[in-house]
Amino acid sequence: MNRSRIAILHPGDMGSAIGGDLSEHGIRVLWASAGRSETSRVRATADGLEDHLSVGACLRSCDIVLSVCPPHAALDVAREVAGQFFHGLYIDANAISPGAAREAAAIIEGAGGHFVDGGIVGPPPRTAGTSRLFLSGTRAAEVARLFNGTRMEAIVLGSEIGAASGLKACYAAWTKGSTALLTAIRALARHEGVEDALLAEWARSQPDLPKRSKAITGQAAKAWRWVGEMQEIASAFEHAGLPNDFHRGAAAVYEHLSCFKDAATQPSLDEVLAALARKPG
Amino acid sequence: MNRSRIAILHPGDMGSAIGGDLSEHGIRVLWASAGRSETSRVRATADGLEDHLSVGACLRSCDIVLSVCPPHAALDVAREVAGQFFHGLYIDANAISPGAAREAAAIIEGAGGHFVDGGIVGPPPRTAGTSRLFLSGTRAAEVARLFNGTRMEAIVLGSEIGAASGLKACYAAWTKGSTALLTAIRALARHEGVEDALLAEWARSQPDLPKRSKAITGQAAKAWRWVGEMQEIASAFEHAGLPNDFHRGAAAVYEHLSCFKDAATQPSLDEVLAALARKPG
Repeated sequence: MNRSRIAILHPGDMGSAIGGDLSEHGIRVLWASAGRSETSRVRATADGLEDHLSVGACLRSCDIVLSVCPPHAALDVAREVAGQFFHGLYIDANAISPGAAREAAAIIEGAGGHFVDGGIVGPPPRTAGTSRLFLSGTRAAEVARLFNGTRMEAIVLGSEIGAASGLKACYAAWTKGSTALLTAIRALARHEGVEDALLAEWARSQPDLPKRSKAITGQAAKAWRWVGEMQEIASAFEHAGLPNDFHRGAAAVYEHLSCFKDAATQPSLDEVLAALARKPG
Repeated sequence: MNRSRIAILHPGDMGSAIGGDLSEHGIRVLWASAGRSETSRVRATADGLEDHLSVGACLRSCDIVLSVCPPHAALDVAREVAGQFFHGLYIDANAISPGAAREAAAIIEGAGGHFVDGGIVGPPPRTAGTSRLFLSGTRAAEVARLFNGTRMEAIVLGSEIGAASGLKACYAAWTKGSTALLTAIRALARHEGVEDALLAEWARSQPDLPKRSKAITGQAAKAWRWVGEMQEIASAFEHAGLPNDFHRGAAAVYEHLSCFKDAATQPSLDEVLAALARKPG
């Protein structure tokens, strides 16, 4: 297997940063610009990714594919790769449920490829020590070695497909779930006319909450992408026989905030709470 | 109005502690033991509450009633008092939705009484500085004065019925909602076989969570009472046109844990997670 080349499909900020990290460590990173935005092209070029235009062209030049895309697109990317009869190693690093990871594995393996489950915790790895790539599957250790010396720390969680996705789901269940919950609580406090009183009580007995409960303003532009992730997490709870309602609620919150996709400026808290109070669509 | 006597219906740990606090400050506190447990009787006696046996007997001796009971019983207590044609001042300090507080007000006022909405934040006031009683309604300031010098700090939130209940709902939406969420996440991590990996990642990037995520063990005995509170909070979100799923999920978590009611010893985390994974009932 040619370990010196990897294709990343379809790099957004995270995928492009991972690609840049790998390319700085001697690995050639390919991507396919067909159908992707100018923003993606500018970013991928800056990160040293080589544009091979189409997915098919990438796959002809690589034995390894890393899928890093919004959760709702993960299975489509797997199908696209399987449709090209890819026989190499496919790593799905997307924020999908363990069940969806097993589904992606079946798609890739059904076409003759090999599958490793992945889950990313932390921001795009533009500085060292911030981000982890959890990996599981029989060839997980092999994938981890690709990241030797890079800014992304690879951690192997054993051979079961679903473990890496499960870890990521549990992690984001709290970070993104609690952000959605706090945003909804501020909206309720405002609706009931008790926001100032709540902030005063929080300042006394929950001193991190006045600030945390407005953290959404810096993240609202990503809310559109988190709808699918919250639905994946809800599926993970449901499949485990646990209450899945929390993340149905979080998905609903982020659905309301999807209007801030590609917003030129960060919305104010007033704008976020107004969007949450509106009916979506 | 006779400000030197107040009836508390039906004192559990919180109501009894409030009664004890008031009685230490020169107010005679009555309660009705009929149909209540021996535990309640022992506690109320220790806190200096006077047993007048029946609700009717309490109401004949008092112009002020404070209702402190599990949320699911709040409207029944209001109906019981209204059924005695109580014309005094009724304070509902229960963890109910703003809408339920307005319903309780209509019940009390329909029978000729006066209503003040209340919401308690903090533990039973056995030491000073830990607990607040939020109050709203046209006679809220009058109620607040009863607590002058006591360990319970009374805070008036204006004249609208629903404000005090709304503040309390927002507060508990986070404290009890986030506890339920963290408990469910640990159960999911265990189901997926990644609990150790999650704890290791949390220790690095969310260092308060390893401990917080097992806080439920010290609170599981109260879970039965929180089911109703979570449902009230879900109603509050729904009435405000906001996603109510978070607290439907929290109610489901606490429903599973209701088996620990009156448990002689604190359950282990293993026991809590096993109860959460079982079908309830």
